[in-house]
Amino acid sequence: MPADDSGAVINPGEDVIRELLIELRELFGDRVSTALSTRELHARDFSFYDALPADAVVMARSTDEVVAIVKACAKHKAPIIPFGTGTSAEGHLSALHGGICVDVSEMNNVIEVNAEDMDVTVEPGVTRKQLNEYLRDTGLFFPIDPGADASIGGMASTRASGTNAVRYGTMRENVLSLEVVLSDGRVIRTARRARKSSSGYDLTKIFVGSEGTLGIITKVTLKLFGIPEATSAAVVSFDTLQGAVDAVISSIQWGIPMARIELLDDVQMAAINDYAGLDYPKKSTLFLEFHGTDAGVKEQAERMAEVCGEYGGSDFSWTADAEERDKLWAARHDAAYSCIALRPGCSVMATDVCVPISRLAECILATKQDIEDAGIVAPIVGHVGDGNFHAQLLIHPDTREEDLRVCGEINRRLIERAISMDGTCTGEHGVGQGKIRYLKAEHGEAVEVMRMLKEAFDPKNIMNPGKMLELAN
Amino acid sequence: MPADDSGAVINPGEDVIRELLIELRELFGDRVSTALSTRELHARDFSFYDALPADAVVMARSTDEVVAIVKACAKHKAPIIPFGTGTSAEGHLSALHGGICVDVSEMNNVIEVNAEDMDVTVEPGVTRKQLNEYLRDTGLFFPIDPGADASIGGMASTRASGTNAVRYGTMRENVLSLEVVLSDGRVIRTARRARKSSSGYDLTKIFVGSEGTLGIITKVTLKLFGIPEATSAAVVSFDTLQGAVDAVISSIQWGIPMARIELLDDVQMAAINDYAGLDYPKKSTLFLEFHGTDAGVKEQAERMAEVCGEYGGSDFSWTADAEERDKLWAARHDAAYSCIALRPGCSVMATDVCVPISRLAECILATKQDIEDAGIVAPIVGHVGDGNFHAQLLIHPDTREEDLRVCGEINRRLIERAISMDGTCTGEHGVGQGKIRYLKAEHGEAVEVMRMLKEAFDPKNIMNPGKMLELAN
Repeated sequence: MPADDSGAVINPGEDVIRELLIELRELFGDRVSTALSTRELHARDFSFYDALPADAVVMARSTDEVVAIVKACAKHKAPIIPFGTGTSAEGHLSALHGGICVDVSEMNNVIEVNAEDMDVTVEPGVTRKQLNEYLRDTGLFFPIDPGADASIGGMASTRASGTNAVRYGTMRENVLSLEVVLSDGRVIRTARRARKSSSGYDLTKIFVGSEGTLGIITKVTLKLFGIPEATSAAVVSFDTLQGAVDAVISSIQWGIPMARIELLDDVQMAAINDYAGLDYPKKSTLFLEFHGTDAGVKEQAERMAEVCGEYGGSDFSWTADAEERDKLWAARHDAAYSCIALRPGCSVMATDVCVPISRLAECILATKQDIEDAGIVAPIVGHVGDGNFHAQLLIHPDTREEDLRVCGEINRRLIERAISMDGTCTGEHGVGQGKIRYLKAEHGEAVEVMRMLKEAFDPKNIMNPGKMLELAN
Repeated sequence: MPADDSGAVINPGEDVIRELLIELRELFGDRVSTALSTRELHARDFSFYDALPADAVVMARSTDEVVAIVKACAKHKAPIIPFGTGTSAEGHLSALHGGICVDVSEMNNVIEVNAEDMDVTVEPGVTRKQLNEYLRDTGLFFPIDPGADASIGGMASTRASGTNAVRYGTMRENVLSLEVVLSDGRVIRTARRARKSSSGYDLTKIFVGSEGTLGIITKVTLKLFGIPEATSAAVVSFDTLQGAVDAVISSIQWGIPMARIELLDDVQMAAINDYAGLDYPKKSTLFLEFHGTDAGVKEQAERMAEVCGEYGGSDFSWTADAEERDKLWAARHDAAYSCIALRPGCSVMATDVCVPISRLAECILATKQDIEDAGIVAPIVGHVGDGNFHAQLLIHPDTREEDLRVCGEINRRLIERAISMDGTCTGEHGVGQGKIRYLKAEHGEAVEVMRMLKEAFDPKNIMNPGKMLELAN
């Protein structure tokens, strides 16, 4: 059965799925899988959500194949959930209403590098590490780094960013054009390769961040950047969290063009010390990276040392040497593992608010208070230049119900706090399942406009239903 | 009469307008003008298009007032054309189907500067120069510079950019959030002030560049930047146009972070020499600007001099002194006036294609050949870092018909050339009236998606009808 009268999606019936599978098997043979293990694997992401398996997983290898799948699903009004690497963070892949998971991970060709134009066109299953490996000899690189080795299609779909958005922007700023299969099987290209354009509505940006709910991305054209001549790194700890944030505000206003500005709180630093046998001060700490010329990165680091000094930063250590740089940043890279190590076997409810930077310290401190009041341990890592931070709330299988209750409450209070500060419930992970209930508070009447868009692009509500928007009132 | 069955708009009848004006006069008194001179002034922009006056002009002073006008127009199905400063370039303001011009130039308050967050919220009638004047004491500035002292609302509506997009981006990258009055009078805010967000569909970007066809912008939140500590400028001429473009390509790949890279061709340089009594070499010439620290701008200029030398650039002169800088760039600022001086009394058909930079020299050279073949004089100015350039095709009142024919043909060939190079028909001016016929060639099936959006947002087709999209087939 398709959508009922209220607009809510309910699972297609067994008969519908049986017929759909016959059609798909004719086209895709053994690239249609109904094995439970495969289906479960494709329903899981990096979050703590239950993974409800789709009725089948189909491996697609071309735009035409995606079109065929979408047309078959549209005919039977069966949900379609696109899958890249399974590294999203808000339960985006769980098949809440059954249907077909379209795995595009084998659509992983780099189609065209235009070195002079500093752009590249890739299939959606190309991962960011694969892309940078491919680009190595060109002197160019793709900077967006969300941590996980995510697919470019998935990163576009969630409007991902990560550690160096402060310098290079997010997927919003770095996707030049997309090829998209619409919910009725039509294929469009959203823009041309020109660096800028005033030619019509910005379709590219409608699909960037649409989480598979408006169409399926089958090609992505990205901006590239020259690999910097020199890179230097620095670490500095602060007496107060406010001091660390103020130093960053000041440095941005001074125009110090930092590539990464990562904040780790005292709890996170303690966790890393324990995990990796290090002895960093258990204080709010900034990890910094500078890109530029040899003289430029030296100048940036020296200026930043001065600025940090003014705000109570101490032990500012920096290096331009590649090996020492890696050593200096190793602690930052260990952050995720060190959290899991706090309660082995746990998964993470990573909060994701983003606020105007003037309110960031206040927002983090109030959240730390909530965490302390709840009697739990939850390290905090922030992309502080953007005002975005993650409290790593730990969910353990043995205490899942209680953890979800306690952490969910902290997250709820955090999101309401961020929205009251003119911030957003999600800076880079997306809405998925977890943030739907906060959209009205954040966007007001604009949510109705989002619904209107969803209905225009996907009148049958088959594109990743149950994510992003609650259609039934 | 409202839209007919084909979806085409035709002028509202006299009775409808009479009734609408009675309602508007009750609300706005003498801020409703039906004087021909006022109506004509509001229908004219910087282009060569005929200025068809609206039935009336209403001065709006608040969002609520815009809502009242939109509701009245919606009730009577009368077109609404928003007006800022009248500096657009594609006939955006001409009331092709009559209706009401909403002048927002008196909505010109700077509402809120958040210096720490480096953002500002303004009413749409604030102009860019007014804004920068207002910001002077904060150490911050708004960099987008389309030449004219345009309104911020208008710049957002056309997705404007200009001379320093290569460093700071366009309106697409620099509008954080908008308040918009929809075609039914509802008011939405498209996003919060967070620097980045993955929270729902990117409504901000749908309205940036929508040319008044989806709603009326009543507030704009913009990113700001720190005023650079030092600015230096340089001028360098090249034996060949290809050499000038190649030097720019190379410098961008090297990561020299130039703030402005303007190309003037030999014809433009000759025109400036004549106009301003200067004696620049009549060659392809780059005007450059560097922003950074004292040491940084020196390093950038020195590196750029080296790069230019490799590509046949000569007489590279640069300075960090403010007065000399202004003198050096004066020629660039004279470009527009020097074109008009070639045929006093003329207006300009400014072509506006944007292509991948690897094809830019080829595209300009083929266009110069077309201009030469036509036996006319048309200087070329390019925002070369973005691949965007303008051939200044002159339309004189005495020979208007013939000029429109000859120049229109050159523009048509140029646009088709740009599209064949994976470029766009408009880099920064917008579609307006002049580019509608090229959208299908540029966007293919995606034009149908744009139509779908227009119909969803503006089912009565009252928002600046006849611009951007041809709704009747």
